Amino acid sequence: MKNFTSVADVADVKALIKSGLSLKQNPYAHKSLGQNKTIGLLFFNSSLRTRMSTQKAAANLGMDVMVMNVTQDSWQIEMEDGVVMNGGTAEHIREAAAVLGTYCEILGVRSFPSLKDREKDYQDHIIRAFMQHAGVPIVSLESATLHPLQSLADMITITELKQVARPKVVMTWAPHVRALPQAVPNSFAQWMPHIDADFTIVQPKGFELNEEFSNGAQIMHDQEAAFEGADFIYVKNWSSYQNYGEIGTDQSWVVNQDKLKNTNAAKVMHCLPVRRNVVIADDVLDSDSSLVIQQAGNRVYSAQAVLKAILEH
Amino acid sequence: MKNFTSVADVADVKALIKSGLSLKQNPYAHKSLGQNKTIGLLFFNSSLRTRMSTQKAAANLGMDVMVMNVTQDSWQIEMEDGVVMNGGTAEHIREAAAVLGTYCEILGVRSFPSLKDREKDYQDHIIRAFMQHAGVPIVSLESATLHPLQSLADMITITELKQVARPKVVMTWAPHVRALPQAVPNSFAQWMPHIDADFTIVQPKGFELNEEFSNGAQIMHDQEAAFEGADFIYVKNWSSYQNYGEIGTDQSWVVNQDKLKNTNAAKVMHCLPVRRNVVIADDVLDSDSSLVIQQAGNRVYSAQAVLKAILEH
Amino acid sequence: MKNFTSVADVADVKALIKSGLSLKQNPYAHKSLGQNKTIGLLFFNSSLRTRMSTQKAAANLGMDVMVMNVTQDSWQIEMEDGVVMNGGTAEHIREAAAVLGTYCEILGVRSFPSLKDREKDYQDHIIRAFMQHAGVPIVSLESATLHPLQSLADMITITELKQVARPKVVMTWAPHVRALPQAVPNSFAQWMPHIDADFTIVQPKGFELNEEFSNGAQIMHDQEAAFEGADFIYVKNWSSYQNYGEIGTDQSWVVNQDKLKNTNAAKVMHCLPVRRNVVIADDVLDSDSSLVIQQAGNRVYSAQAVLKAILEH
Repeated sequence: MKNFTSVADVADVKALIKSGLSLKQNPYAHKSLGQNKTIGLLFFNSSLRTRMSTQKAAANLGMDVMVMNVTQDSWQIEMEDGVVMNGGTAEHIREAAAVLGTYCEILGVRSFPSLKDREKDYQDHIIRAFMQHAGVPIVSLESATLHPLQSLADMITITELKQVARPKVVMTWAPHVRALPQAVPNSFAQWMPHIDADFTIVQPKGFELNEEFSNGAQIMHDQEAAFEGADFIYVKNWSSYQNYGEIGTDQSWVVNQDKLKNTNAAKVMHCLPVRRNVVIADDVLDSDSSLVIQQAGNRVYSAQAVLKAILEH
Repeated sequence: MKNFTSVADVADVKALIKSGLSLKQNPYAHKSLGQNKTIGLLFFNSSLRTRMSTQKAAANLGMDVMVMNVTQDSWQIEMEDGVVMNGGTAEHIREAAAVLGTYCEILGVRSFPSLKDREKDYQDHIIRAFMQHAGVPIVSLESATLHPLQSLADMITITELKQVARPKVVMTWAPHVRALPQAVPNSFAQWMPHIDADFTIVQPKGFELNEEFSNGAQIMHDQEAAFEGADFIYVKNWSSYQNYGEIGTDQSWVVNQDKLKNTNAAKVMHCLPVRRNVVIADDVLDSDSSLVIQQAGNRVYSAQAVLKAILEH
Repeated sequence: MKNFTSVADVADVKALIKSGLSLKQNPYAHKSLGQNKTIGLLFFNSSLRTRMSTQKAAANLGMDVMVMNVTQDSWQIEMEDGVVMNGGTAEHIREAAAVLGTYCEILGVRSFPSLKDREKDYQDHIIRAFMQHAGVPIVSLESATLHPLQSLADMITITELKQVARPKVVMTWAPHVRALPQAVPNSFAQWMPHIDADFTIVQPKGFELNEEFSNGAQIMHDQEAAFEGADFIYVKNWSSYQNYGEIGTDQSWVVNQDKLKNTNAAKVMHCLPVRRNVVIADDVLDSDSSLVIQQAGNRVYSAQAVLKAILEH
């Protein structure tokens, strides 16, 4: 694997999932692989799970880790080409990426979308600039449009815990009080067709995802109908793609125990952080229906499988 | 040892002090103990000594260290159960603690009190939530009410440097310009009865500590009388426990060389940071009377003894 | 080497450059040298290259690294002696430096000048306080007046890439929109006389550097004349030393391809970050004339040569 920014970078998704599950059994078996290799983790935005699980994954492989909160520790980075940099930005991405590429064998980059300018967000400027200028493999730690490390952890979790050969997986929109990116649901939709499952996405009208990512799924608008017989329910809020960045707060979409009654004892997933009783009710999160902690735990093996594949390239 | 949040977590205080002194002689003797173990250090508040000494202690034991400034690097954490999280908090402590517990074999947590709501502060909500939800040993890096890593370093320092079998140790209140927590003096008072010493606490009326912690000490209000014959003087400001959070600025309590004249050539201790000439005068801090640097140096061996005991559990 | 804060700390500059070039060929040859040694990197100001390259250099030598953003992670540090600390500062540099010296075998310190009070800035208070109170070797990660790790990387780069035995090196002032320190040009001027080169500094009237640092160079004010026959052009903005802190924005000093036409196919250097089309034009930075990325890459070996020399002391 050269870069890891989308499912399209993965030659064999099932083999990568298998690698993650195998690393979970034996996390320190490849500790010499990363010897004298450095990963730089660059955060243009906040992170808890991605930050910690990727650090852990790199350490499990014997790598050195350098973490940088770009705007706190350093300065504002200019993303546009050809500009006269007489404003607030002190360094151009061309230099920043190229220099960091000389210090690190792999770079991880997190950057969120503006949720104001759809066209610009969907160009995924920052991660593409790193791919273009860094000269080393780039791992997305969540970009403006995709979160593949999360999706791989999700695939690992479903593969690990499914009770039937071909589970029914439903991703449902849920309400929120802020405008959230579409990166996690886009990415989940992009990965799901690569595993053995029936996949449905359900959301209110006006909250359909970009079809470029969702076209492998059955699209529904009735949550109750969609949940029927589900084995896994993946809950996530996202702001509107059509009315770009519009917030949806319809509380009838909150996922609680009552809504699980016609499922196949569905397990509930969420990428976290989750706002309790806004997105998912306490009665789900504090019950055995919830997989959110195991799912977050698998972030380590998702990242480790990816770093291992890149180091072995 | 399972957790380390109070002296009550320690089965044998003197053995732990001895372990710290032994590690000081031979810091790298147990470097394989922490192999492939990760400690996560979570700071809800600022830290210099605790941050650096605990990192060093963990590295001395061969552990990997992941440091996180929770609110800077991540987001606001919700502490209350049962709330609808439609405000400023993005993640609940239940998820945050449980997830971090899957990434780390030990978690260290620092969180200060509000100094506004005494009942709530003394419930020590954050550290208790981590103990309840993380599923791994928790080390207090200073909680709202106690600072046991500091106190263990203090016990190590007194044991290391005492000139008589049973020294007279006086903890004196000193003035300050801001409202400071009671965690350090509470904790010192809690640990002192476990070593061989005569222990006195002296403070102005209205600044008596919570008796739950101070009940092993002789309580006085006359600093000059208390200092007579003292071998160690532990200086510390704290805001009022009675008039909760009230600041005391009485400059007659500043500790200077003149006040040491009737002591037994007392050595002066302070946990640092110390405001010079507000809490302790330059003529003490810049003299051989001061132990503050050695005391801070012993923070490494305090933390290392604790981590070693937890890893060996 | 005891400290590394200026070229004056280096007994044999050419040997140190040679060490850097040798480490570049074989970065992991001395991995046991730093075993069980810790470097603390203290940032009073932002940093990207220095932060990352010094971390990498230390890891290459097997050292443990602890990074601290002083004011973010900790609190305001008092620098003045003898003051009553009843204001915004919570800890005195005397304690902070001494304590950090007990936790680390080497300390790196970055602190920028105010650019308001020249006399005070040029006393380089912070780095001197660390040298006085820390009790361990101090490495400047850029002080108010000098940036020797940058200069050593510059000397390594010129030595590595020069096409003639005695190249002509011209350091040219360039415009900027903010007041920048004189540390990089002071330091470059201080190091240049120690390698085989003809060295010229060119700047507008009123932007001459402190002669204490520039007195080994030919001083000119005509950029076109200065560039004639140059092998290396070192571009840098600095604010005025005479009218201390005054910003210079004269766009006729921007370095572009047109200005290189009478040089000896000059290679262009800059310490980065560089504001594109304000300091250097895109047509230079995106061409083979630019060495800025290789130069930044050499920061690792500059730092590694210094740390190796200190560890071997």
